[in-house]
Amino acid sequence: MAAEGIARSPGEGLPRGRGESAAAMVAPEPAEGSVGIVAPQHLMLPDGLTLACGARLAPVEITYETYGTLAPTRDNVILLCHALSGGSHAAGKHHPDDRKPGWWDLYVGPGKALDTEWFFVICVNVLASPYGTTSPLSINPATGEPYGLTFPPVAVSDWVELERAVLEQLGIERLYAVVGGSTGGMRAFEWAVRYPERVQKAIVIAAPARSSPMVIALNHIQRQTILMGLMQGGEQGAQRGLALARMLGHISYLSEDALWRKFGREAYPEPDFWGVTFQMESYLEYKASTFVKRFDPYCYLYITRAMDTYDLAATYGEGDLSRALSRVEAEMLFISFTSDWLFPPSGQQEAVQTLQALGKRAQHVIIDSPWGHDSFLVERVKPQLKPILKAFLEGTAADQTPLQTVESLAL
Amino acid sequence: MAAEGIARSPGEGLPRGRGESAAAMVAPEPAEGSVGIVAPQHLMLPDGLTLACGARLAPVEITYETYGTLAPTRDNVILLCHALSGGSHAAGKHHPDDRKPGWWDLYVGPGKALDTEWFFVICVNVLASPYGTTSPLSINPATGEPYGLTFPPVAVSDWVELERAVLEQLGIERLYAVVGGSTGGMRAFEWAVRYPERVQKAIVIAAPARSSPMVIALNHIQRQTILMGLMQGGEQGAQRGLALARMLGHISYLSEDALWRKFGREAYPEPDFWGVTFQMESYLEYKASTFVKRFDPYCYLYITRAMDTYDLAATYGEGDLSRALSRVEAEMLFISFTSDWLFPPSGQQEAVQTLQALGKRAQHVIIDSPWGHDSFLVERVKPQLKPILKAFLEGTAADQTPLQTVESLAL
Repeated sequence: MAAEGIARSPGEGLPRGRGESAAAMVAPEPAEGSVGIVAPQHLMLPDGLTLACGARLAPVEITYETYGTLAPTRDNVILLCHALSGGSHAAGKHHPDDRKPGWWDLYVGPGKALDTEWFFVICVNVLASPYGTTSPLSINPATGEPYGLTFPPVAVSDWVELERAVLEQLGIERLYAVVGGSTGGMRAFEWAVRYPERVQKAIVIAAPARSSPMVIALNHIQRQTILMGLMQGGEQGAQRGLALARMLGHISYLSEDALWRKFGREAYPEPDFWGVTFQMESYLEYKASTFVKRFDPYCYLYITRAMDTYDLAATYGEGDLSRALSRVEAEMLFISFTSDWLFPPSGQQEAVQTLQALGKRAQHVIIDSPWGHDSFLVERVKPQLKPILKAFLEGTAADQTPLQTVESLAL
Repeated sequence: MAAEGIARSPGEGLPRGRGESAAAMVAPEPAEGSVGIVAPQHLMLPDGLTLACGARLAPVEITYETYGTLAPTRDNVILLCHALSGGSHAAGKHHPDDRKPGWWDLYVGPGKALDTEWFFVICVNVLASPYGTTSPLSINPATGEPYGLTFPPVAVSDWVELERAVLEQLGIERLYAVVGGSTGGMRAFEWAVRYPERVQKAIVIAAPARSSPMVIALNHIQRQTILMGLMQGGEQGAQRGLALARMLGHISYLSEDALWRKFGREAYPEPDFWGVTFQMESYLEYKASTFVKRFDPYCYLYITRAMDTYDLAATYGEGDLSRALSRVEAEMLFISFTSDWLFPPSGQQEAVQTLQALGKRAQHVIIDSPWGHDSFLVERVKPQLKPILKAFLEGTAADQTPLQTVESLAL
């Protein structure tokens, strides 16, 4: 675990409660640093977990990473939740010569939005993901073979339970904050509803209270493409199916505006009429070809199904969203992006309005960004997103306005 | 040809030019009728056509339909252009017991927007479509086998030439109007640019001046899914590939709002975990299963590629849209729908602003509709769309405002 040496005591200057001084917010902006070289950590649950579907999965192995230092009072913990194709490697590098750092290195580190000089950040790889936690790729002890499609269905709430197991292991009862985008945002939201007394603040980025039929439709097509490949062409067929699924997933994370800016109608120099004739197509094929090397078709099937079944109203309110969200005690921040058509601002608006009608502390910030759903991963959005995250994490409730604000992104 | 008996002389009351009386517009709304029973017509071009790609395709057989009566002065002709999966059967029925009439029966008939008591409406099935015009399903006379993937690439301009061949056969030099939606709108627009002196009015519904990279991306994924099915599973595999392609095409014609209204998150009563567990998925599978019975995978490949290559700026302006559109002489009406994310209003706006900057007569009407790209086919949009079409077709240029107007659709 990196950055231990530089951690200050979290009690030092971090405002905690409503009405306290927000002096930390107006301090000079600290220089940003890296968490440096980090190593994944592992936890084995020999007795496994009972899943939402009723199945018992055992054993369960969990891979996670942490950044910063856990305060002796254990009250500086941020649980960071990764998205569909992410993993526990959120910041820093595993090896000095890694080409890229973790998936949210932009926002996790000394002086960054999730400032590891104050916070102890934990990121747990979810069940059914191929990055070190038990998944369809793992060996089923009953058969000695990989689970494949015999793996049990997983739900977003199972991922929350997995994260809770890691926190228990670390002796952490309560989260200062839970933060996530996309399916990670679903998880952050579910934490605030499932364990209200354990979450002080929650940041839900580009995720609603329940998946829309558009998400279900897009995921259905992606899964059926993988399954068609599998049935018609075996493992190799499933790989091409996964590539096509990823292409569809990928464009659902972008916007038409972003595609015009990046590719327009530019021709590909070596056209193949039924293959690639436009740069747009070349890009999709390239992105898909790198994705299939790092991901797995079975994992993709399970994770997208978990997205579909995500519905806080159904799970905690018998279909009534207001009833479900009445459980929330955390102070909540929702962040949407104007050009996100996969999880558009309207989905978050429903959640925020429901919370506000219940008298809960919920804010909604809509960032005017052309980069679609993936805006929270795009470096050019950082000037807008970082101060919003930082103010919410380091400020007090009194500093916040419950009204929706729109930040205009200069392009 | 139906409705001949009821046709009035087209000279009777139809305003033709700028500055004439618009009295016809304020006449009492006539009752709507059907064009009745119609029969497809055929034209054989033994010498075929030279296509935009340079290939000579011969022979070419063309299927088309007409509604209403051609005036002796031949100046009451509306060319109606069908979309991707449509055909020449736009109105009426082929047999009294047909379950459904033609694809635009809402708008074509006595008293309808394209009033067959005044207008002679022609709809021509395009090249590469499976509905009676030469396509990959046709026999290649050189081999005695169906063309399949040896069919030459087709372009939107080839479809215009095909339509021109039908008009020539009928002795029609000039169109009173050309009207189309989606790929039919591309064709209507291309007519106005390619043959400016032959088009008096053009209505382009939900189509831009060039396909966006989003359209190219969605079409690429659809084609690759068909090709994967074909390569891995032969003809049967291609059928499933076509089904999945259609599902993706279909949701690109709808909007998230429409999907919430129609399906929400309703469960399917007999769930199959890797198949259908939501009504949304059941609907997609149902729509796709009916589509594959009436369409063909090869035709789908060719028509989507024609959509991709559609670019008026490239074809008529060496990449300069203003130069291409400077050719236009027709009075033009563009109609967009707010929730259309496949061909969003922004694409039409580019075309309209370019035309207006050139001093051309171009209007843009954006209809506030939740039904997405397919709004022009949705009965609930008719109260908004019909009067707009009718006023443009029957009014004079002096009646029109060049400014963009927004009609709010009561839901």
